[in-house]
Amino acid sequence: MIKINENFLKLKSSYLFADIAKRIEKFQNDNPDKEIIKLGIGDVTLPLPPACVKAMHEAVDEMAISGSFKGYGPEQGYAFLREAIAREDFQSRGASIEPDEIFISDGAKCDTGNIQEIFDSKTVIAVPDPVYPVYVDTNVMAGRTGEFQDGRYQGLVYLESTRENNFIPKLPEKPVDLIYLCYPNNPTGATITKDQLTQWVKFAKDNKALILYDAAYEAFVRDSEIPRSIYEIEGAKEVAIEFRSFSKTAGFTGTRCAFTVVPKECRAYDSQGKEVHVHSLWNRRHSTKFNGVSYPVQKAAFAVYSPEGKTQVQSNIDYYLGNARIIREKMHDLGFDCTGGENSPYIWINGKKDSWSFFDDLLNKAGIICTPGEGFGLCGKGYIRISAFNNLENVERAMDRIEKAL
Amino acid sequence: MIKINENFLKLKSSYLFADIAKRIEKFQNDNPDKEIIKLGIGDVTLPLPPACVKAMHEAVDEMAISGSFKGYGPEQGYAFLREAIAREDFQSRGASIEPDEIFISDGAKCDTGNIQEIFDSKTVIAVPDPVYPVYVDTNVMAGRTGEFQDGRYQGLVYLESTRENNFIPKLPEKPVDLIYLCYPNNPTGATITKDQLTQWVKFAKDNKALILYDAAYEAFVRDSEIPRSIYEIEGAKEVAIEFRSFSKTAGFTGTRCAFTVVPKECRAYDSQGKEVHVHSLWNRRHSTKFNGVSYPVQKAAFAVYSPEGKTQVQSNIDYYLGNARIIREKMHDLGFDCTGGENSPYIWINGKKDSWSFFDDLLNKAGIICTPGEGFGLCGKGYIRISAFNNLENVERAMDRIEKAL
Repeated sequence: MIKINENFLKLKSSYLFADIAKRIEKFQNDNPDKEIIKLGIGDVTLPLPPACVKAMHEAVDEMAISGSFKGYGPEQGYAFLREAIAREDFQSRGASIEPDEIFISDGAKCDTGNIQEIFDSKTVIAVPDPVYPVYVDTNVMAGRTGEFQDGRYQGLVYLESTRENNFIPKLPEKPVDLIYLCYPNNPTGATITKDQLTQWVKFAKDNKALILYDAAYEAFVRDSEIPRSIYEIEGAKEVAIEFRSFSKTAGFTGTRCAFTVVPKECRAYDSQGKEVHVHSLWNRRHSTKFNGVSYPVQKAAFAVYSPEGKTQVQSNIDYYLGNARIIREKMHDLGFDCTGGENSPYIWINGKKDSWSFFDDLLNKAGIICTPGEGFGLCGKGYIRISAFNNLENVERAMDRIEKAL
Repeated sequence: MIKINENFLKLKSSYLFADIAKRIEKFQNDNPDKEIIKLGIGDVTLPLPPACVKAMHEAVDEMAISGSFKGYGPEQGYAFLREAIAREDFQSRGASIEPDEIFISDGAKCDTGNIQEIFDSKTVIAVPDPVYPVYVDTNVMAGRTGEFQDGRYQGLVYLESTRENNFIPKLPEKPVDLIYLCYPNNPTGATITKDQLTQWVKFAKDNKALILYDAAYEAFVRDSEIPRSIYEIEGAKEVAIEFRSFSKTAGFTGTRCAFTVVPKECRAYDSQGKEVHVHSLWNRRHSTKFNGVSYPVQKAAFAVYSPEGKTQVQSNIDYYLGNARIIREKMHDLGFDCTGGENSPYIWINGKKDSWSFFDDLLNKAGIICTPGEGFGLCGKGYIRISAFNNLENVERAMDRIEKAL
């Protein structure tokens, strides 16, 4: 008899976005003339940079002709892209990452979701709270948690990110095996300093733990003191895997390209306590279950590193950071405590009331959609996330409306 | 301490392609003037159909402009593509598959690799022999097998496909839970009749088992009596998941688009023996760990169903089938027993000696590369696979060389 993986039954259905959609629908039915401005979703709005568009067209033309047509590419990605990433994103910042330590994929969601497969089923997992749900749900599916009770899965260690600790959680009090960290953070917009990150790397070394470092928003870091990669921290290559994406950097949310860095020094242990290289495990996983990213997409991603591409990407990020500043300053002026919005596209706002009440206020009084913080975990209660991914005009109109309404 | 998933250590390294590469390198060093013709790899050679190229260019242009730019799409794929697939690939052939039963992905390798996650860790798995290695390796990684011994993983049920049973394995003698089938078959090129497939569907029903039906090569079926989908068999929707791909159909091996069909009737069971719908489990897995296929790629796939796209795809498949017929007829004339090459791009040839010896003969005497059958399993011993994916001129020259050499 074919039986299901019953861990799936533990998954708490996320009603967050369904709930949001329902409230929006009601508002629109009640107010058919009112225009809604969406500042909820973490999706980009600016079109693809022209350098990427040009490169993708050229690659599509290559696919149209016998001599230049590309069939299966390397599962790990084309050398041209891996080399550009190693050089531009890491070596240029003093992190000695080699091209063969970079695995091109179709999304950081896939990579952060799939990475847990190479670790033991009994691994003790530490996740931030608030958290990007993929880290949690994929470990629930793999049976590394108990049931969902009182807003949390039993067996997970939650790293509480609160105003009190400036949204950088304390080191765990007892040993954990695998630690998910995300900076600049989704959803809080908080960033981590080199000193703070050094403490985490030290913790991982001392406890033979491993850090999964999600740097999907690194392109928003403008402050040169803030690390953009965990490999800027000495010794991190032994204890950390890093996830990056072109989604937020270059507007690839609908084009799909990302990468994972697994340094050759990165180690885990077998049941006898013997060191094992994680690189070869991930390589095996990746090449067994994945067949490479679309060639025109890889060419488009490669164009991000061209001189024009760099300028265009920088300009898009500046645009979103300009929006973020406007949101942050206005909400601050209105007396709200805000995090993020500097070196991050997200502003995390203490609404001084229940998340959903604040959400309803913004929707009903101002026609603005945000994301209720409690959708990201218990520590999100009382917060909302506003995203800077929209056009400037909408952001300015949204802030005017909020000012008048609140 | 971070411990690895030790099931990965059970994986037998596949030396097949490394071994092939080593022998080719030696041959080229010894014979620097000799040109090699590759008939080994299952990768397409014809460029993308013009209709797909045009659609992809148009979609890239949409991504370049604010009004038409696409960010995150639906994880399950755009409705335009799911609707076209349901209508053209299934409903038009009498199989009542609905658009929301189709999950668009970036490859059948990913889908056939990931699907096992939604089933119990103790599932008893039946795999063909010879076999596409992904079915096996992904279950090894998930801990559903014992060690590798004498050419096979303990705990797996191997469905032997041999000349004696015309490469359609007998039904298992004892119950199994999950059955991988692939027709037209890789590597044997064998096809299955409706009557034979009906027997498998009946077996699955009688044993409360589930069939994973890999139809990646269905576009090569020209004989109207041969089923192109398992859903042409009555009752199959309850007991079968089907995998399809644009890779071999429309030359998408480097462009990346595929889909999986999970009918809403398809059922598995919980530990109490209660029926559970597989559709919702797969939907949850897919939307948690995957973020949709690149929009321009989905537009290119959609063009496969346009009138021009259909004609172009048909013509490409005809071309490869023409190559296949030449290979099959020549090898048959030379006295070899052949399967496939009709309704399939692969020709499975009994070399009347050890696979590697025959491989060496073809390489050293004719400069032709094939794939040794034993790379696909114990039942592949003594066989080689020749692929029709090359241009006609090369295929004709290859056959001339083989005729002269053998």
